[in-house]
Amino acid sequence: MTNHASHQFGPADFNSDSLGEPSHKSPISNRIGFFVPENSRVLIENSAEKIFSICKSGVAPLSFEQAGPREKIYFNPEEINCGIVSCGGLCPGINDVIRSITLTLSRSYGVRNIYGFRYGYQGISNDRHEPYLLTPEFVDGIHEEGGSILCTSRGPREPEEMISVLKHYGVKILFTIGGDGTLSGAYRLGQEIIRQNLDIAVIGIPKTIDNDLLWVERTFGFTTAVDEAWGAITAAHVEASCVWNGVGVVRLMGRESGFIAAHASLAHSDVDFCLIPEVPFSLEGQNGLLKHLQRRLEKSHHAVIVIAEGAGQEFFSMKQKADASGNIIFNDIGIYLCHCIKKYFQEQNIPVGLKYIDPSYLIRSLPANAFDSEFCMVLGQHATHAGMAGKTNLVIGHWNGHFVHVPLPLIAGKRKQLDPDGHTWNRVLEATGQPSFMV
Amino acid sequence: MTNHASHQFGPADFNSDSLGEPSHKSPISNRIGFFVPENSRVLIENSAEKIFSICKSGVAPLSFEQAGPREKIYFNPEEINCGIVSCGGLCPGINDVIRSITLTLSRSYGVRNIYGFRYGYQGISNDRHEPYLLTPEFVDGIHEEGGSILCTSRGPREPEEMISVLKHYGVKILFTIGGDGTLSGAYRLGQEIIRQNLDIAVIGIPKTIDNDLLWVERTFGFTTAVDEAWGAITAAHVEASCVWNGVGVVRLMGRESGFIAAHASLAHSDVDFCLIPEVPFSLEGQNGLLKHLQRRLEKSHHAVIVIAEGAGQEFFSMKQKADASGNIIFNDIGIYLCHCIKKYFQEQNIPVGLKYIDPSYLIRSLPANAFDSEFCMVLGQHATHAGMAGKTNLVIGHWNGHFVHVPLPLIAGKRKQLDPDGHTWNRVLEATGQPSFMV
Amino acid sequence: MTNHASHQFGPADFNSDSLGEPSHKSPISNRIGFFVPENSRVLIENSAEKIFSICKSGVAPLSFEQAGPREKIYFNPEEINCGIVSCGGLCPGINDVIRSITLTLSRSYGVRNIYGFRYGYQGISNDRHEPYLLTPEFVDGIHEEGGSILCTSRGPREPEEMISVLKHYGVKILFTIGGDGTLSGAYRLGQEIIRQNLDIAVIGIPKTIDNDLLWVERTFGFTTAVDEAWGAITAAHVEASCVWNGVGVVRLMGRESGFIAAHASLAHSDVDFCLIPEVPFSLEGQNGLLKHLQRRLEKSHHAVIVIAEGAGQEFFSMKQKADASGNIIFNDIGIYLCHCIKKYFQEQNIPVGLKYIDPSYLIRSLPANAFDSEFCMVLGQHATHAGMAGKTNLVIGHWNGHFVHVPLPLIAGKRKQLDPDGHTWNRVLEATGQPSFMV
Amino acid sequence: MTNHASHQFGPADFNSDSLGEPSHKSPISNRIGFFVPENSRVLIENSAEKIFSICKSGVAPLSFEQAGPREKIYFNPEEINCGIVSCGGLCPGINDVIRSITLTLSRSYGVRNIYGFRYGYQGISNDRHEPYLLTPEFVDGIHEEGGSILCTSRGPREPEEMISVLKHYGVKILFTIGGDGTLSGAYRLGQEIIRQNLDIAVIGIPKTIDNDLLWVERTFGFTTAVDEAWGAITAAHVEASCVWNGVGVVRLMGRESGFIAAHASLAHSDVDFCLIPEVPFSLEGQNGLLKHLQRRLEKSHHAVIVIAEGAGQEFFSMKQKADASGNIIFNDIGIYLCHCIKKYFQEQNIPVGLKYIDPSYLIRSLPANAFDSEFCMVLGQHATHAGMAGKTNLVIGHWNGHFVHVPLPLIAGKRKQLDPDGHTWNRVLEATGQPSFMV
Repeated sequence: MTNHASHQFGPADFNSDSLGEPSHKSPISNRIGFFVPENSRVLIENSAEKIFSICKSGVAPLSFEQAGPREKIYFNPEEINCGIVSCGGLCPGINDVIRSITLTLSRSYGVRNIYGFRYGYQGISNDRHEPYLLTPEFVDGIHEEGGSILCTSRGPREPEEMISVLKHYGVKILFTIGGDGTLSGAYRLGQEIIRQNLDIAVIGIPKTIDNDLLWVERTFGFTTAVDEAWGAITAAHVEASCVWNGVGVVRLMGRESGFIAAHASLAHSDVDFCLIPEVPFSLEGQNGLLKHLQRRLEKSHHAVIVIAEGAGQEFFSMKQKADASGNIIFNDIGIYLCHCIKKYFQEQNIPVGLKYIDPSYLIRSLPANAFDSEFCMVLGQHATHAGMAGKTNLVIGHWNGHFVHVPLPLIAGKRKQLDPDGHTWNRVLEATGQPSFMV
Repeated sequence: MTNHASHQFGPADFNSDSLGEPSHKSPISNRIGFFVPENSRVLIENSAEKIFSICKSGVAPLSFEQAGPREKIYFNPEEINCGIVSCGGLCPGINDVIRSITLTLSRSYGVRNIYGFRYGYQGISNDRHEPYLLTPEFVDGIHEEGGSILCTSRGPREPEEMISVLKHYGVKILFTIGGDGTLSGAYRLGQEIIRQNLDIAVIGIPKTIDNDLLWVERTFGFTTAVDEAWGAITAAHVEASCVWNGVGVVRLMGRESGFIAAHASLAHSDVDFCLIPEVPFSLEGQNGLLKHLQRRLEKSHHAVIVIAEGAGQEFFSMKQKADASGNIIFNDIGIYLCHCIKKYFQEQNIPVGLKYIDPSYLIRSLPANAFDSEFCMVLGQHATHAGMAGKTNLVIGHWNGHFVHVPLPLIAGKRKQLDPDGHTWNRVLEATGQPSFMV
Repeated sequence: MTNHASHQFGPADFNSDSLGEPSHKSPISNRIGFFVPENSRVLIENSAEKIFSICKSGVAPLSFEQAGPREKIYFNPEEINCGIVSCGGLCPGINDVIRSITLTLSRSYGVRNIYGFRYGYQGISNDRHEPYLLTPEFVDGIHEEGGSILCTSRGPREPEEMISVLKHYGVKILFTIGGDGTLSGAYRLGQEIIRQNLDIAVIGIPKTIDNDLLWVERTFGFTTAVDEAWGAITAAHVEASCVWNGVGVVRLMGRESGFIAAHASLAHSDVDFCLIPEVPFSLEGQNGLLKHLQRRLEKSHHAVIVIAEGAGQEFFSMKQKADASGNIIFNDIGIYLCHCIKKYFQEQNIPVGLKYIDPSYLIRSLPANAFDSEFCMVLGQHATHAGMAGKTNLVIGHWNGHFVHVPLPLIAGKRKQLDPDGHTWNRVLEATGQPSFMV
Repeated sequence: MTNHASHQFGPADFNSDSLGEPSHKSPISNRIGFFVPENSRVLIENSAEKIFSICKSGVAPLSFEQAGPREKIYFNPEEINCGIVSCGGLCPGINDVIRSITLTLSRSYGVRNIYGFRYGYQGISNDRHEPYLLTPEFVDGIHEEGGSILCTSRGPREPEEMISVLKHYGVKILFTIGGDGTLSGAYRLGQEIIRQNLDIAVIGIPKTIDNDLLWVERTFGFTTAVDEAWGAITAAHVEASCVWNGVGVVRLMGRESGFIAAHASLAHSDVDFCLIPEVPFSLEGQNGLLKHLQRRLEKSHHAVIVIAEGAGQEFFSMKQKADASGNIIFNDIGIYLCHCIKKYFQEQNIPVGLKYIDPSYLIRSLPANAFDSEFCMVLGQHATHAGMAGKTNLVIGHWNGHFVHVPLPLIAGKRKQLDPDGHTWNRVLEATGQPSFMV
């Protein structure tokens, strides 16, 4: 699903940092099968041919450290405080993660003080709001509401400033829930912690509704988003098919990648064109979208277009130049596309009934569905286990069906995209019947 | 709820037209209580004092004819064809009405040919698409989908042209599902039928998701719309409350009236300002919306604004003049409001997190909820009964808890609005805590 | 909709009790149209002919006092405490009502102490749990969850004991949310308060998901229940139609009346038989349900039966006698019906695929839909206004489109039922196609 | 997640059957990356240590053949007919699979006649109903409804009889959608086809809402079921927490395994006891469920129990013996559990409020959520690709993130269960706080 090239990496890139040798016995359980052995690792690839040929030659295949509770832990739970922070845009499931970490720290490990830093990284700065003291009672039922009880903000803070706040509260493990930018901030924080030789773990829980983080197969909130995008596509289809030459345009989330747009189009039968950042398209010309739309309308008299918010961004720079004198400044590909469709069909003297739907904020702010909710709970548990075991500078990822530790340097500042030659996009082309190339 | 002045009307205004004396026995039923007596009427007002003082003086109070099945009917069901048409924008429940009329005509009365004219009044014109032949099988399950299986269009057709099409198909009863404009068209058609002395009944089923037709307490789809607006307001609240100085703006349907906005605000707890066409407001000034919004943010650091699409239209003419040189042409009060909020707080140097949600097309295209679905079924049954009884030039209304016959001249081209001094708006002010006047 | 005979009542029966002359100015508002005049009343009936003939002869027609805020109030809000209690089974909207009363008492009137008595009338007894102190913060968001934050119990308490508790907390207005039994308890409490000549108002908010209270057109939670019953009927239809001779049986709420069953059947297209307490039916015999079901299966090979929980209770006494030796004790008509269907078709050697669905607890525990939520808010506001104005021994009802004061003696211990000769049941027969009589 | 022991199997067990050498060029696509190479295989295990140690010694690790479109196909699409059949109980997504196979056969490959055999294997027998002729128009929109448009039945038919029907219709590829029993039937059919040396492919699409098929990580409908079980657990929690000593019991699907019960309990926060077939429990005794329930009630006064339908089946044989005289015959563990709880607390003289919820039929009959819907679409596409490539006697499975070919002998008649020592069950114990052993 990803277009990374694993051959660029060596085994060392997949090893996680650690604060030191774990020496305390975990207080959680003594059940068989509960603990994950230290050397347990998950293969990066699972193509049988490839793996066999690598291994036969005596080279160990690339792998991630498996996440999960460790029998020996690094911190004495009774002696430390912990902190949680959520950054960036909303995504279904943030409250589930906060709740899971709080419950696991408190009930499973017995950590006493858990600080909920508020409004993103601003909450770990000198102009912070007082953090919440998180308890099982405090987090009771929060996962039934969307958003984040810790609120969020965008933007980084200086590592030194953050460290002084963490020290102020005696925080030994910081859990950061956030996307690309947030994790880059966590990485810089972790580097500074190493530089100062401090005993503080930094554990990331990757948050991107777009599901576009490299080395992470699935992020929480994504299936909820695809579920809910269904309703928007249905609405567009109903609106389009109830008038002559009806066109429904749905803009879905996906700044850098088309995962939501593609999977929603696969889940729903009535999409005629799916447009994503990874696959450039033209509007004009015999093979452009507008001409293809016209052909579609001539055939069935209605059409649905799904477009990721990051698709067709190349139009804007051009347009902005063209419009230097300047009437309209576009910042929304959906609105721009509607504008172009209207203009084109007006020039052709073909009446169309155009309806534009942008459900983004309706989706982002939902509580997680059950599937994501369980996923968030396990992510939070594994983040806690990792932190207590003294792991640091990593995020909890999901790879080949397992929860794994992904080192921050591998993931921070990198994104995955849909492979235009991969299975998913090929299936989208098959399902929509749209041309492979519209350029 | 309405601001009509019933004293302007005389009893004659409330009498329905009829094609002639009903002489056939209804084939439907012989159950006790099934038929509504011919002289059954429903009071327009139910204030005990007022009615008593009118009646004591020997004046009969104003009343509507009660709708329902008649024991004697005008048409011989076996000899006539009927037609159904839906016009204007989508609204939850159109398919329920089409289905109900079809089932009642076919199963209860035994009418053989029911034509479903397509794409609104265009379907009853010379450039029509061939109508569907509606049967119980054809309408099976259609009410589980949104939209209209007959599709719709906007705009009228010449009554003469429509009559020639009705004659072509032998249609003796035409059912028109539509709003203000559609019913005006139906009225003109009815007048022409009278002029030509034809035996054709015209029965309207009022459709306006805004619930803004005069003399009609409730229109189908309205409660579904209020139900679904809830989700949009919740989303706005979550988005607003999760960032510092978050503002969520939700634009709801309501071109001429604020019924959806007001009732959705009453149903939902988290609305701080509800803006409707009936109550003018200023943006600027010490008592303007922007200043009040600022005060609200200073107090609680987040706010939700619900605005009906027809609110504040007065800003546009002014702005358009001001912007004659012309950068931006607004046609959406929600987008304009967002623009003004952003500008105002930028000037004040106060950062705000603004999120705009417009769920209109997501709501219009839904299937009806159970409450509206039942309402549509009864509307369709009563429309059929009225037509078979030879009633004409009326719509099926709902008044004081009863289904009634509302003469087309009373309703066509007129709208109701929220009374700014009435109970509903007073309750909204109480619930939101917003100032009574923002001018 | 109701089978009461209003001619049995005189005007006095419709007058509400009052603690005394209101002498304080309401602190709420000075807006035009906000207050309801003291003499404002709502007609009981709105048949134009009947009302005219009564009034002409100089007799005032029967009417209810209109509910709403009064300009003069009886209690000084700053001097009193209030109490709220919820009793009986769950119903969507209880938390909305609690929240609305709390907000109106606190924010609109400025009452300082509002006690939330817990676990029903047990909370106003000597073995009570300490009541909650209700504040706007306490009730924030509670309406988004089902159930009752005050919890409930069944059964009455002695009026003397309740009064001593009310005195203990200085409660001057008690709001009781409950059904038939609860309101009878409230009535006895009110009588004892009169006997002791105390200054305590008792205001009821009628709660019955079955919508079966006499003199109350609509109770909260009912439309939510009908909405949700839809899903159960759809499931039964899908299950029934996917196997040969599939039969889906859905048991819906309605101990004494079939309102939910009837309206859900009207809202949903796929019900073949609707069975309610008001209309007796036989199982056996040529005109019994089983034979009719067989005919239906022979025709279309699947069928859906909706049965109210109180339907066919007459079978149990007979059966229980017959089974005195006693293997099976039925207490669920749905399970009994399934048993009889299985047995009958086994004897006929006709294989059927029977599926039984009882969604009752899934429905009762839901939060209210937006329509009910708004209704609850206005009910709570009007209950508060009534109490503050010194009204007592009444419930807030809804009649002919208005909120009214219904004296407790009129309503306590009485129920309404579906009229087997009325419009609703006639429409159900038309919609299902089931025989009028199955006896 | 599974308790199979892969070391019992050799590489040959994982190879799929084939009808012969594919010689036709696939008509679908010529896009890069579209086709899956013939030798592409997916590792069974992805533990890095284990795989490395196997491979180092020169032994190829066990793997499945990867599913997907092949460049060379076995059948000439223009010359063959195909058939689809669905068997067993309902499950969300059956219509999606039928639709996907139909669209892929028809649009991608150009197969002309696709027969939809009705009512399960009975549709491929001598007393069959005439099959439907499936076309893109026929399957339009069917995935928006629950159930199976082909209907289903239980029970096998003789392979010889089935083959004669397949021959009658010229069917060269039969797609069977079904569970354990259905796939065993498919296996016997495939064996007979080999015996008769016929050119007919048999492709299974595994259907089990319980997700309990061996060698298949995920089956369609499962996530929809977990999503919907959420609502039932919420209802049980609301009902339980609103009365004193309230107990909510939810029975969920899972005859042989507790996957739905376990994952629903993980997704939902309010489950106190999760009971599954894989983990025996006692009712009586100091360490029995009833005593633990009592302790839980003493602590928090409400509790929620989730029980899989196959849990505690050992009680029935015992009880049935005990009750040989015989009043009650239990066949439902949920009802039995409720019976025992009532009796126990009555004996203890502790009043409890018990509510029982069984949402099974409400869940089974739903349409698939978007996540399952996409999964079904890809399953159907891959089933079609496998059949056209001449693969046979296999099912389309999902393993380690890939779609794979699982030979029928591996899967037919075998089930997977939750490992009581595995991660999922350990997480359930952590989340519910229930004792590890209640025996």
